[in-house]
Amino acid sequence: MVKWLSSFGQSKNGGVNRLLYSPSWVSAQHALKNKMEELGFSTHFDSVGNLFGRIEGSEPHSRTILTGSHIDSVIDGGIYDGVYGIIASLLSVKKLIEQYGQPQKPIEVVSLSEEEGSRFPLTFWGSKNITGKYSLDHVFKMKDTDGISFLEAMKEAGFPPEHYKSPKRTDIDCFIELHVEQGVTLDRTKTSLGIVSHIVGQRRFNIRIIGESNHAGTTPMIYRKDAMLAASNLISYITNLAFETDHQLVATVGKMTLKPNVPNVIAGEALFTLDIRHYDEEILDSFCNQLSSYFHAYARENIFEIEVDQWLDIKPVKMDTLLTNELKQIAEKRELSHLPLVSGAGHDAQVFGTYCPTALLFVPSEKGISHSPKESTKKEDLEKGICVLTDLLYTLAY
Amino acid sequence: MVKWLSSFGQSKNGGVNRLLYSPSWVSAQHALKNKMEELGFSTHFDSVGNLFGRIEGSEPHSRTILTGSHIDSVIDGGIYDGVYGIIASLLSVKKLIEQYGQPQKPIEVVSLSEEEGSRFPLTFWGSKNITGKYSLDHVFKMKDTDGISFLEAMKEAGFPPEHYKSPKRTDIDCFIELHVEQGVTLDRTKTSLGIVSHIVGQRRFNIRIIGESNHAGTTPMIYRKDAMLAASNLISYITNLAFETDHQLVATVGKMTLKPNVPNVIAGEALFTLDIRHYDEEILDSFCNQLSSYFHAYARENIFEIEVDQWLDIKPVKMDTLLTNELKQIAEKRELSHLPLVSGAGHDAQVFGTYCPTALLFVPSEKGISHSPKESTKKEDLEKGICVLTDLLYTLAY
Repeated sequence: MVKWLSSFGQSKNGGVNRLLYSPSWVSAQHALKNKMEELGFSTHFDSVGNLFGRIEGSEPHSRTILTGSHIDSVIDGGIYDGVYGIIASLLSVKKLIEQYGQPQKPIEVVSLSEEEGSRFPLTFWGSKNITGKYSLDHVFKMKDTDGISFLEAMKEAGFPPEHYKSPKRTDIDCFIELHVEQGVTLDRTKTSLGIVSHIVGQRRFNIRIIGESNHAGTTPMIYRKDAMLAASNLISYITNLAFETDHQLVATVGKMTLKPNVPNVIAGEALFTLDIRHYDEEILDSFCNQLSSYFHAYARENIFEIEVDQWLDIKPVKMDTLLTNELKQIAEKRELSHLPLVSGAGHDAQVFGTYCPTALLFVPSEKGISHSPKESTKKEDLEKGICVLTDLLYTLAY
Repeated sequence: MVKWLSSFGQSKNGGVNRLLYSPSWVSAQHALKNKMEELGFSTHFDSVGNLFGRIEGSEPHSRTILTGSHIDSVIDGGIYDGVYGIIASLLSVKKLIEQYGQPQKPIEVVSLSEEEGSRFPLTFWGSKNITGKYSLDHVFKMKDTDGISFLEAMKEAGFPPEHYKSPKRTDIDCFIELHVEQGVTLDRTKTSLGIVSHIVGQRRFNIRIIGESNHAGTTPMIYRKDAMLAASNLISYITNLAFETDHQLVATVGKMTLKPNVPNVIAGEALFTLDIRHYDEEILDSFCNQLSSYFHAYARENIFEIEVDQWLDIKPVKMDTLLTNELKQIAEKRELSHLPLVSGAGHDAQVFGTYCPTALLFVPSEKGISHSPKESTKKEDLEKGICVLTDLLYTLAY
């Protein structure tokens, strides 16, 4: 069924292009709506294009068990990312109804409109509308790289902004998301399931080192203020400190620009990014403070100017302990190998996690490959994930 | 007079644009030719546009004392680079004739057509033709960035390739070049003159580190093959080794490119340049061998692939000891502060240095600034240089 859905927006390389409100996104959501109706769900779209398939509960006034993930993809993305969580939810609920009939509590499967931030410069458009964190105000002047405005795109996809009504839900009991890991840990340790305890906090910085551009031949080493060398020393320091601080901490310098960037001229300026993640705000604080002191000392000692500009600060989110324990018990009862994991990537579960009890369950990604047509998960791992989700939904709704 | 000549090809920023065979280059060479004739020189162009101004010697069959530098500039270059050596030669010879009349040996002042390599991908076009190292074969298919061929450019400047006749000279006694330092040493040590003992050898490399591109959030530090980190470690090592090896050795990483160069993705590939210079081939060999062993060990230990591609190998050139000693004696007699220097930049003197006895004399560059409109040398330093050149030419030609 994942493969069926990947046909909407299939890319040349066997991946998917399903950007928010694009024609392939529209077809995929409508195909899903039909599929949900075939399976006996009552369906509706909210005003930003989140699709819900609902099975009514027998207990009146019960709060809703929500499960699902996002339908949008990155450009040339993998076919399981997001979609697996939606399909798995549908199959789980179908199985429960076939086996146990109507649940006590209502269950809804949600196909969230947007998580990746690949078309417009915002992320979690779907989940942040449901949780009341976003409204039209956040996208008013936003445009994609083709110059199409967010509001135009909404309209074209059948969600005209003039009909916008806040999709905020106040009846959600909990949110369960099943997702591929997008990392190497489960694959390397040959483990079937990752039970997520936290989603990391993320801080991103631009760091500019201003030295002195000069002739590479006529400037003795002792007279240099080489920005590339300073950057190298700082990057080595950052990495060593990350290793020493905590094995769950990651620090990445992924982007580097030198000026003037010419072989025979000493770099006068180096600009690099720094991406730091950990699930514990205190560890993030302490790591960032140590870096900051070191940077200042280094700048003073070597007469460099160092500018540090933080442009992202996402707080860590803890998943619900009761739900997490439940998942662990289910995995043990079914004798499935499992690991507690910290999610280093962002997920809709982190938006729901500050709003209602939330759980996030991972299945392995082969070789950890993600956001690529080569993304893949073995069939038996996909099935194990569905099995555990089914058991959890049974516990919660029946 | 330097300022007069800088008016041919003056740039918006107060520098000069005088690329080989460009209209401003043509005007400058012709203006110089007229100036030489006014001063009593007999002039001629050779077939690549080197301009010679000759004062005949009284001794028949004497070999020629050649002095001068290059007329071309980099884009938006300084006004003294090259031109100072030509003007200084003219003024020195003028003074000698006024004071002592005709010399015994013939003296020629040369305005070399090209040294910088700023228009076409070759350097030393002027001096390498005079010394027989280059001919038309070397530029046959060469084009500038506008697609104009070298041969077309020659023709437009008035040197049609069909009239080419090797400009190789066999009558040169010695070559003397006076130039601005383009480095910080004289300025920092408040020294008037740099007497060059060697021009450095240069080796340039492209170094490619192939690691593994991966998600910056979901890939634990221990599972990473981060090409940026490997590059940083190697750059720190290179620099430390350069410091330890010899205070005259310089090693520069001026250009760096990461792939994919995105803040939240671990760099899978880092490509950087390495520029190494020293006047002693043995030290260059030993330094490069140590780097190579370290790179291999690092690659093996950390399971990286490291590709090293050498694309430049210029041998060091020693200046003539007798001429160098003569310069030293002159400076001492005139009580001018002077230092023995190694030239870290390339100069026409290095082409002549393997062909005939050659001397290279530097005057300070303020703050060491070079290849920039901000390049400058104090008037009194310019005059001291001319004074010493005059004395040397007197010793050689009278």
